[in-house]
Amino acid sequence: MVLGERLGDKSDSRFCGVETEFQEDMPQLLSFNLSSSAAFDFVVAPLMDPAYRPSLMVNDRNRSGVLPVAGSDLVLSPAQWSSHVVGKLSSWIDLDSEDEILRLDSEITLKQEVAWASHLSLQACLLPTPRGASCANYARCVNQILQGLNNMQLWLRIPLEKTDDDAMDGTHDDLNGGQMDSWELWNSFRLLCEHHSQLFITLDVLSSLPSANSLGRWFGEPVRAAIIHTNSFLTNARGHPCLSKRHQKLLTAFFNHSIQMVLSGKPVHSLPKGSLELGSNDADDIQRHPLRSYLDYVGYLYQRMDPLPEQERFELGYRDFLQSPLQPLMDNLEAQTYETFEKDTMKYIQYQRAVCKALLDRVPDEKASTVTTVLMVVGAGRGPLVRASLQAAEETGRKLKVYAVEKNPNAVVTLHVSELLGSFGDNELSPECLDGAQRFLKQDGISIPSSYTSFIQPVTTSKLYNDVKLHKDLVHFETAYVVKLHNVARLAPCKPVFTFTHPNYSTEKSNQRYKKLQFETLSDTGSAMVHGFAGYFDATLYKDVHLGIEPSTATPNMFSWFAIFFPLRTPVCIQPGSTLEVHFWRCCGATKVWYEWCVTSPTPSPIHNSNGRSYWVGL
Amino acid sequence: MVLGERLGDKSDSRFCGVETEFQEDMPQLLSFNLSSSAAFDFVVAPLMDPAYRPSLMVNDRNRSGVLPVAGSDLVLSPAQWSSHVVGKLSSWIDLDSEDEILRLDSEITLKQEVAWASHLSLQACLLPTPRGASCANYARCVNQILQGLNNMQLWLRIPLEKTDDDAMDGTHDDLNGGQMDSWELWNSFRLLCEHHSQLFITLDVLSSLPSANSLGRWFGEPVRAAIIHTNSFLTNARGHPCLSKRHQKLLTAFFNHSIQMVLSGKPVHSLPKGSLELGSNDADDIQRHPLRSYLDYVGYLYQRMDPLPEQERFELGYRDFLQSPLQPLMDNLEAQTYETFEKDTMKYIQYQRAVCKALLDRVPDEKASTVTTVLMVVGAGRGPLVRASLQAAEETGRKLKVYAVEKNPNAVVTLHVSELLGSFGDNELSPECLDGAQRFLKQDGISIPSSYTSFIQPVTTSKLYNDVKLHKDLVHFETAYVVKLHNVARLAPCKPVFTFTHPNYSTEKSNQRYKKLQFETLSDTGSAMVHGFAGYFDATLYKDVHLGIEPSTATPNMFSWFAIFFPLRTPVCIQPGSTLEVHFWRCCGATKVWYEWCVTSPTPSPIHNSNGRSYWVGL
Repeated sequence: MVLGERLGDKSDSRFCGVETEFQEDMPQLLSFNLSSSAAFDFVVAPLMDPAYRPSLMVNDRNRSGVLPVAGSDLVLSPAQWSSHVVGKLSSWIDLDSEDEILRLDSEITLKQEVAWASHLSLQACLLPTPRGASCANYARCVNQILQGLNNMQLWLRIPLEKTDDDAMDGTHDDLNGGQMDSWELWNSFRLLCEHHSQLFITLDVLSSLPSANSLGRWFGEPVRAAIIHTNSFLTNARGHPCLSKRHQKLLTAFFNHSIQMVLSGKPVHSLPKGSLELGSNDADDIQRHPLRSYLDYVGYLYQRMDPLPEQERFELGYRDFLQSPLQPLMDNLEAQTYETFEKDTMKYIQYQRAVCKALLDRVPDEKASTVTTVLMVVGAGRGPLVRASLQAAEETGRKLKVYAVEKNPNAVVTLHVSELLGSFGDNELSPECLDGAQRFLKQDGISIPSSYTSFIQPVTTSKLYNDVKLHKDLVHFETAYVVKLHNVARLAPCKPVFTFTHPNYSTEKSNQRYKKLQFETLSDTGSAMVHGFAGYFDATLYKDVHLGIEPSTATPNMFSWFAIFFPLRTPVCIQPGSTLEVHFWRCCGATKVWYEWCVTSPTPSPIHNSNGRSYWVGL
Repeated sequence: MVLGERLGDKSDSRFCGVETEFQEDMPQLLSFNLSSSAAFDFVVAPLMDPAYRPSLMVNDRNRSGVLPVAGSDLVLSPAQWSSHVVGKLSSWIDLDSEDEILRLDSEITLKQEVAWASHLSLQACLLPTPRGASCANYARCVNQILQGLNNMQLWLRIPLEKTDDDAMDGTHDDLNGGQMDSWELWNSFRLLCEHHSQLFITLDVLSSLPSANSLGRWFGEPVRAAIIHTNSFLTNARGHPCLSKRHQKLLTAFFNHSIQMVLSGKPVHSLPKGSLELGSNDADDIQRHPLRSYLDYVGYLYQRMDPLPEQERFELGYRDFLQSPLQPLMDNLEAQTYETFEKDTMKYIQYQRAVCKALLDRVPDEKASTVTTVLMVVGAGRGPLVRASLQAAEETGRKLKVYAVEKNPNAVVTLHVSELLGSFGDNELSPECLDGAQRFLKQDGISIPSSYTSFIQPVTTSKLYNDVKLHKDLVHFETAYVVKLHNVARLAPCKPVFTFTHPNYSTEKSNQRYKKLQFETLSDTGSAMVHGFAGYFDATLYKDVHLGIEPSTATPNMFSWFAIFFPLRTPVCIQPGSTLEVHFWRCCGATKVWYEWCVTSPTPSPIHNSNGRSYWVGL
């Protein structure tokens, strides 16, 4: 039974699982945890007896090599295995132990268990948390498995808090001093496994939580599930389990990022008898799952969420989906979402406001009936800007003559309105087009927009990085993509990159640009991975009327632009307090315009897209 | 005229150049510097008037866009341009200036000059030293040029000393604090240019030198030339220029690494009249090049070097040449160098010593005539070990019966001699072969070798990295190569990796191995780039008789093994004082044996060669 229904939201976070102990009788385990009155959707259950050790088996002739699995694969239907069971690998596994026997036992067991889970067609296996800072042998073994794995996912269990070194097995050395950030453990593991696309994370949520900035990093990582322990729950006035405000906020964020919940642990709240719901009877009580009150609370948090706003529902299908910038966003959307797109009235309202203000400034009231303003729409599209302009004329009582051109302007212009802006401002050649149109603009003419600025910020986005990597070529790592960013961690506030102003009468006119930027992450974030840069724009249409998607000043309720994403060929790890130095170039050749970009600190990257070899816009 | 002739050495370091000022009359410039009595081999000369600035040209109609080059390309023959001129790009170029006009002028000029040099078929251009720690725009521009360059090399000029920040242009910011190590400048530049194979270094040698360990790093980098300034010279008792001992040692190392010298600067020694060579006449004196006494001294240093030992002459053709480990070194050498190879007597002397000692230990004098020792040569090759064994029997007066087998042992063995060792000890399956042969060994039998250990050390080797990269695939980055390491910087002493002992009667017998190693560079080395690991072996043949190539204990005068090289897919930069943590695995499957390796600190690398996907040895 799902946690609830939310209009438009079909993500996996509707499902809730429960972590169980090993039980030989798997049908009984499923029936106990998934029966209608218990209502979990899946179990995270061990597949092998935790007492099993391969090195003991060799000398134990009675068992003659038969693995101590939880019964035959026939006890459940393939659909049951696949939908209702996540295999939990033996937690004693320790591949980086100093004890060689334990290490070899661990390697054999890990491979046997994953092979068995794969045979059962499970969707996922939960891998135990690495025991210490050093996890190279564990990663090597998992990486070997990943090379040959079909569809099954491996979920590495990572505690969601800074782990104190004292709490760890003393036999492991810790390179990082007293405290270890569990994100670093994950980061080492996934780098060793080369960002393998079937390696995911399950977060263990404990009673204390790291800072909000530290937590934020995980939303750019491939987190599939979060295990909430019963001892993380507080008790409300009526004796029921509940969560702290911070935990509630975190769970809501998990729900919004398609992360499934898993409950774990023994019940630690004994509900007063009278507190059960009205209408419950004795039979129900007997069948009642011991974690039912925790599940109810998680369901309550799920159902309490606001329904998705219309814009977000519309954008759901575009989340974290890379689109080529050479096929403008509108072209992709048109077929499916023409009607929805027409609702992006906010954009045209802003243009209309800008034209109104410009008309009032240029034509005083006493000349309203005699002076006709000539306006040229450069890049008129389907015509909404023409309509907005005519409405502005009507609203202000000014006389207006409009030329609407799609490209190559060829008429005298006084007032000049453009819809050429791309997600990164100048990435769809607005500077070149408006420069080209400028000779038709009168000396005292007005350009709308009068200026625009691009912005970038470093992001963690494991999903997009892997989607780019999937192409196995250089070209895709040197291309900018239009994308609705969702599973992304924004690591620092945006900084401005390039600004263009129109009209531009300077003599040394060049649309080449070069900008060096330095970012510092917030001190409590911890280390983080930069997979690339999210790009945005903000345009000043006229005076105080602006339009843009830069997150801190974004025009609300606007549908027309998603962000742009510039990937890095090799992700860069930044340490707390260190500076990320980034360079962006806008280069102009005889026949094309392109961007180049690189990182110079903490470690220099290659210069991306040299000479526009991979990605450019033709002139 | 070359500096001298050295038996067997045909490297470029025989040639010496001179750095000159701009001169319109290039034929005159060449004749002055290269005439027989001056005797330089090439000039490093500016190609354009240093007063040229593109931004001034625009307003200067008289010059109508003709570039102020040093004359027509016809003033010299193509062969003269190519053999005798290295183009020196305008030293005012500063692509990372805060001054945008200067930046754009620099970009235009850099591209014009390189295009002109390329038109002249010059072999190389000298690029001016980056002005500050920040060189991203300079690197971006050079990288763009490199993408389209044919054969010409670009030599980036780098001062060979720690540069004090105060000495730099104050408009540049320096991320590294007060002092900047010039190697870091080079490292940033080449990382931005992605290790481009046509980007080289020219080192400026000044009067003070960094520490020996700091200097050592350059021998793994693509250094093509060293510019020695006249003010780096001291004065000897007779008033002649000479160099400090450290400078002399450095120049000798340059000669040995095929690095060409270039003299630069004004003469700062006025030689006493009487000091000129006997037989010089007035006409000679007039033609005498002002730097002649410096050139003579450099020639003296060159000629003073010991001739190359026979072994090094033999190995010259193999220097830094990657060989596939699946074609054993001997097979490659046989055709050309069979005779030379037979001279590797040292190896057989060591085996013979080991067999002697073993025979004396096993058979007391009184039983010498009655006891026959049975000896099996596992992997007998062409038979030299059989010969060495028989000689040992004769030398000790013991009776010996020898079985010689190339593979798959099939006879009863008492004493057991093997030539199966690879460059990395166990990389040619010696453990598996000797384990296989062990069942034929008597309980008290002796194995020669009795044990062997592999060793690795991190190295800088830009040449090998680029040779591996040239293949543009994963396989070559996950393969170990046999190679005569020469242009290489060894960044830390070797550490042992895997040890195998024979015979091995333990019950849990496995030839799988796992080793975690930590390296620390010497504190005065500075930062350095690790392109991979050099591997070696040392074998204990019997008791104190050993054989090996580990540099600190290498058996002298032995020809049979070069080192092995394990590349890294992405080179790792290590900072002074930081630890390089490395993991090596020897993995054994049903049909093959392979290595996997990775780095976990300072930054985790991917695990190389997972499941032996790229490189393995079949069983």
